[in-house]
Amino acid sequence: MEIERIQLQKHGDNRGMLIALEQDRNVPFEIRRVYYLFATKSGVHRGRHAHRRLNQLAVTVRGSVTFLLDDGSGPVAVVLNDPSQGLLLGRMVWRELYDFSEDCVLMVLADQLYDRNDYITDYADFLREVNGAMYPQDVAACLGR
Amino acid sequence: MEIERIQLQKHGDNRGMLIALEQDRNVPFEIRRVYYLFATKSGVHRGRHAHRRLNQLAVTVRGSVTFLLDDGSGPVAVVLNDPSQGLLLGRMVWRELYDFSEDCVLMVLADQLYDRNDYITDYADFLREVNGAMYPQDVAACLGR
Repeated sequence: MEIERIQLQKHGDNRGMLIALEQDRNVPFEIRRVYYLFATKSGVHRGRHAHRRLNQLAVTVRGSVTFLLDDGSGPVAVVLNDPSQGLLLGRMVWRELYDFSEDCVLMVLADQLYDRNDYITDYADFLREVNGAMYPQDVAACLGR
Repeated sequence: MEIERIQLQKHGDNRGMLIALEQDRNVPFEIRRVYYLFATKSGVHRGRHAHRRLNQLAVTVRGSVTFLLDDGSGPVAVVLNDPSQGLLLGRMVWRELYDFSEDCVLMVLADQLYDRNDYITDYADFLREVNGAMYPQDVAACLGR
């Protein structure tokens, strides 16, 4: 799958760094929700779901984390460890997050408010939806058997 | 002046912490811009301005910083050191930021895109605008002297 990174401009000077994310400028959607993960425990895996409609932009504002991403064509590992690198997460991408550094703060901007119905939490369901594939039991059901 | 803090709900479990900021739910404005300050050097003061129109919500997602806030009635120091505490910064509030911890990441949500004309960067100008007060030279100018 194609990995969409956004290089974010650092506004640095002799005081420190500032990075700005602005909707419809360097963020390709309206920002309705911002969430952040922190104090993630060692060995934890998070995510393990896909979204039907949600678009997101993820940035590690501190520390590092690995994303395993899959659009149905197979998993790709992406390390995020730079506050000036944004990772775009589009619709129908299965994601799993792991290898959080102890100090990791992962910030995510999203174009929709929280909606539990937008989640696909079963990988087989995800593959079925994304590939439009049918499982044997579905074929059987379609055929009325 | 009145300090407006927002207590943000922590969605914690055995994996770690997640906090979500959602426009018109726990953020009292539309989120158009998100910026973050990091790698701030020791001894640095930032800010030293006010905004005529901008509303903001500040959170230290990591580390700590002190805000000196002044709405024209005199300065008040506010320490931010908790990822579950939001600080609302309304219009016409002079702010100065200092005592950044080495690891501080300060995230700010704003209801407008960047607009350099919205800044008041001179404290005397700020006091004049916020108090509607007139300086002797302005009085003289008004009187045509």
